[in-house]
Amino acid sequence: MSAGCVHINGEFVELDEAKISIFDTGFLHSDVVYDVTSSWQGYIFKLDQHLERFATSCDGFRLKNPYSDAETAAILAECTVRAECEDASFIHMHVTRGLYAEGSRDPRLCENQFAAYVVPYVWLWGEEKSKAGINIHMADVERISSKAVDARYKNFHWGDLIQAQYQAYEANRDDAALLAADGNLAEGPGFNIWVVKDGKCATPDANCLLGMSRQSVIELCGMEGIPFELRKVHPDELREADEAFATSTAGGVMPITAVDDKPLGNGAPGILTSRLFDSYWSRREAGWCGTKISDLLN
Amino acid sequence: MSAGCVHINGEFVELDEAKISIFDTGFLHSDVVYDVTSSWQGYIFKLDQHLERFATSCDGFRLKNPYSDAETAAILAECTVRAECEDASFIHMHVTRGLYAEGSRDPRLCENQFAAYVVPYVWLWGEEKSKAGINIHMADVERISSKAVDARYKNFHWGDLIQAQYQAYEANRDDAALLAADGNLAEGPGFNIWVVKDGKCATPDANCLLGMSRQSVIELCGMEGIPFELRKVHPDELREADEAFATSTAGGVMPITAVDDKPLGNGAPGILTSRLFDSYWSRREAGWCGTKISDLLN
Repeated sequence: MSAGCVHINGEFVELDEAKISIFDTGFLHSDVVYDVTSSWQGYIFKLDQHLERFATSCDGFRLKNPYSDAETAAILAECTVRAECEDASFIHMHVTRGLYAEGSRDPRLCENQFAAYVVPYVWLWGEEKSKAGINIHMADVERISSKAVDARYKNFHWGDLIQAQYQAYEANRDDAALLAADGNLAEGPGFNIWVVKDGKCATPDANCLLGMSRQSVIELCGMEGIPFELRKVHPDELREADEAFATSTAGGVMPITAVDDKPLGNGAPGILTSRLFDSYWSRREAGWCGTKISDLLN
Repeated sequence: MSAGCVHINGEFVELDEAKISIFDTGFLHSDVVYDVTSSWQGYIFKLDQHLERFATSCDGFRLKNPYSDAETAAILAECTVRAECEDASFIHMHVTRGLYAEGSRDPRLCENQFAAYVVPYVWLWGEEKSKAGINIHMADVERISSKAVDARYKNFHWGDLIQAQYQAYEANRDDAALLAADGNLAEGPGFNIWVVKDGKCATPDANCLLGMSRQSVIELCGMEGIPFELRKVHPDELREADEAFATSTAGGVMPITAVDDKPLGNGAPGILTSRLFDSYWSRREAGWCGTKISDLLN
């Protein structure tokens, strides 16, 4: 397996040594929440905000991270250094419910388990497509409702997302967009979706992860004077957008240049999309919202 | 850890040696289906039907069991013998998507992984309560819609079920019943729900697992001349039932004797419930729908 470092069961190990029991209910019942941030040029991005969202996800699933935020931050930093990718890494952490007590299926009696891993930076659709734009497939699989499993709590319930990806691949498209039960846009597998019309950006306000990169674009729009709205977004707005983009830790701001094979605008990354991409990455290069990794080690 | 046997990565191992990579998407994306049967008095119950449903679940998730049905049956039989519980065991099998290919997130490129385990027979609510009946909690968590993740394909997306259980435990009740998005009864964590009114049984026809024990009760009703219906069941029908019961591999037919603390009937297991319980277990004792474990080993 490739380079990287895992912290699991209190130890730092190689990727191919990182295993959990098949009896951990994090596997058996997908009773697990996670979070992902990234490092760039020696800085971890929005570390405090990620730790805060991670804690919110844990609370939402009634899980408890056995480590404090400071301890978690130190583990993530050491993992990043051990993985030798302080300048460009993908930083993942999760908490699983753990094993049931003997003869019990009471989740309250489980000892929750933390793990984290750091691998070289990942571009969601590969670096080239993440920059040049993708052809997205409008899937007919419904996104799991937040009335069942709340999408605000970042979780591994991806059965709907994976089947939507299959549909996309089978249609020779790059990735999928899913709708919520109310027929409005929800999100894609691991990314939020934005539409741009007449110089104004919009992204769904419900049935999606409250993505950190989504939040970053909200902040960039504020700084750049670009109008934006958080509201219900109908799928026709994506089909008829001037431009569209996805936001994810694994790429930041990434153009969507076609919907179901139909090009958006002239089929190239849009003007506002490119402006937000440049703004995002130039700030990341400069350590925007970053915590210096070396400071976390001392 | 307690007695049992696991087959994983082509080997038979102890329970506490049974581990999967944290990078298996069966964990990371809960991209996994499973099935569970049981042995009793040297026979595996409805083996062919379980293998058929398991194959349907695999197909539904676009997964492939690397073993044929005959190979799978032989593994389950050997696991049962190695676990030394041919006379009363809980037999689980699953297929996970496996690891992503290097640098890819295309599920089509993963090598699907099979595992199975056998442990001593499990009663869903412990043996005593599974026979005497439980007080069920009407949860306000919605069951994941089959438009998102199809409940017919037996899967590990249990985030909704676990949170419903938490609600039940916090209300000092024994387990939970969940409703579908349309407001009708769906199922509980690991069991189907039946209501009895005026001598007639009914169980939901949608948004639930097509349980094997549910199917067995359908057959028993036919044999015993008990009228039954598969249809939408409103939660008020459970609240106002003469009697109610759950069906699960982990107990067969199990009385529900109260709903939200309010006793059903006189608060004891109902007459039809007891009749179905007796019918189920006397037939199981006699090897009903059983495949002789020793025959699978030769």
